[in-house]
Amino acid sequence: MAVGGGSTIDTAKVANLYATYPDDFYAYINAPIGQGKPVPGPLKPLIAIPTTAGTGSETTGVAIMDLTEHKAKSGIAHRYLKPMLGLVDPENTRTMPRVIAAASGLDILCHALESYTALPFYERPRPERPIYRPAYQGNNPISDMWSLKAIELTAKYIVRAFKDPDDDEARTNMILASSMAGMGFGNAGVHLCHGMSYPVSGMVKTYRPTGLTSDHPIVPHGMSVILNAPAVFRFTGSACPERHLRGAELMGADISKVKDPINDAGHILANQIVALMKELEIPNGLSAIGYTMEDIPALVAGTLPQHRVTKLSPRPANAEDLTKMFEDAMVAW
Amino acid sequence: MAVGGGSTIDTAKVANLYATYPDDFYAYINAPIGQGKPVPGPLKPLIAIPTTAGTGSETTGVAIMDLTEHKAKSGIAHRYLKPMLGLVDPENTRTMPRVIAAASGLDILCHALESYTALPFYERPRPERPIYRPAYQGNNPISDMWSLKAIELTAKYIVRAFKDPDDDEARTNMILASSMAGMGFGNAGVHLCHGMSYPVSGMVKTYRPTGLTSDHPIVPHGMSVILNAPAVFRFTGSACPERHLRGAELMGADISKVKDPINDAGHILANQIVALMKELEIPNGLSAIGYTMEDIPALVAGTLPQHRVTKLSPRPANAEDLTKMFEDAMVAW
Repeated sequence: MAVGGGSTIDTAKVANLYATYPDDFYAYINAPIGQGKPVPGPLKPLIAIPTTAGTGSETTGVAIMDLTEHKAKSGIAHRYLKPMLGLVDPENTRTMPRVIAAASGLDILCHALESYTALPFYERPRPERPIYRPAYQGNNPISDMWSLKAIELTAKYIVRAFKDPDDDEARTNMILASSMAGMGFGNAGVHLCHGMSYPVSGMVKTYRPTGLTSDHPIVPHGMSVILNAPAVFRFTGSACPERHLRGAELMGADISKVKDPINDAGHILANQIVALMKELEIPNGLSAIGYTMEDIPALVAGTLPQHRVTKLSPRPANAEDLTKMFEDAMVAW
Repeated sequence: MAVGGGSTIDTAKVANLYATYPDDFYAYINAPIGQGKPVPGPLKPLIAIPTTAGTGSETTGVAIMDLTEHKAKSGIAHRYLKPMLGLVDPENTRTMPRVIAAASGLDILCHALESYTALPFYERPRPERPIYRPAYQGNNPISDMWSLKAIELTAKYIVRAFKDPDDDEARTNMILASSMAGMGFGNAGVHLCHGMSYPVSGMVKTYRPTGLTSDHPIVPHGMSVILNAPAVFRFTGSACPERHLRGAELMGADISKVKDPINDAGHILANQIVALMKELEIPNGLSAIGYTMEDIPALVAGTLPQHRVTKLSPRPANAEDLTKMFEDAMVAW
């Protein structure tokens, strides 16, 4: 039984995997960092009880880990990793530290926005054999339902849940949104905000968020994701502008007076995200958590191997594109 | 492997159950008609391939059967009945007879409208032990998502799919709606339209739909359901008017000019349904398929034991209420 946030639930998934099918540690980790070997069969039953409203890990077959020797995060993705049962109870998120309420809530938003704007399932290359089919298949009519509802709920309740942990209605809807977004992205996948977040978390120098007790420097996962989000959506907007606009509208954007919304879709969505980051007291860009322009080559190098997610970007991103996005993400407003 | 409409898939579910756990035929059938014994354990793998866009049976743990000695339908409901896999391919619905395209499509609509207007999950009585928990739990935030999307898609595509079986987009969206509504009602449940449909199908006298080859009189399932729908929603409208209005709006109703929509919710929804029945060439009420006022006591008697579904009505219905609804359902327009 896993009781905790995404790290805890993912640790339990991985422990379950290696306990059931022992192998070299890199065997099951996503290629090209690991060997990307498919999970051989069903695992032991796992019950996941989330204590943050963000991860959605209780609904997915994905586990993310910190590969300290690579200073990057990678993961294992296979439907057999999915917990047998999730017990999703808003009572368990009442005592989250404020910064985690904000960061994990923004993780939901990115799960949903990324899966909604991910490459469509019919544009993904087909693997040679079904067993090599990735867990993430791209956006599709089923994942869209979860993603859109999760965006709507998060936009409506995140600030209330952040400001008042005793707002039961807001907290209930945030953890519901978390599971919904999990069912969306666990199926469709996330893309660049998450892909770029792994080195941002992995290469942390000295940053420790206010109000979080930790014996080591840490960028909370949701924070490392949202810090890239405005830059990412400005970059991907042109690939599927209608989807970026739909996301922005669910977040409250009024595009009725925008002259050329299609051409401006990525920026419109980015502006909504930035407004929310401010309200939720998120640091102003990567520079505010200790990164400088000199770190960008390493951040790019840490993102490039994240094929599992980067390949789902609706607009392909090479090293130069990633460099520009990290530059853009240095200061958010 | 079950290849066919709802009857075929349900037959395979039941065959699988009795082959795996042999017992008296009434053992597993819903109380009070049967003993309502819980299914003892997992069944053999079943793959369901629907050839109608209506049933949603590939997604549910429910099987409905005709109990000819009772002249009524009843069912078995347990999550273990759920097929391991559904292969949902719109190519398999291209050759449906016209009347089945209409009737099964309207079954989707009722699955979705009934689960959306079913009693909320928190108003259902709690069983003594979890094993006795019914498969149908009442409307909830997850089933609502499926139901609303299925209403939207059905309203948009049913007439096109009926009029032109080569309209691939319409047919694709109808079978998608069918699975979505299945996930909604398989979880939330249906109520009076379905409860009242069982004796309507079971007591058929001589009716045979135009264009359907059959060696016996038959009221197609979706037809027996939709014929009750306007009367049912006129009756239930007052219990949750906002939900009835939301359904009507997704079906195209413009309530902006209605003076007192809340008070008129059931009628507004019923009018939308009747308009669709006309377009889809559905018989004009129960009288058009051979029922008379004299049959009503027997129709009511056949509905009353359908606790599995009738108990989910947002407004409780006794024998007198059912009598009035059957009277109302005799002529639809």
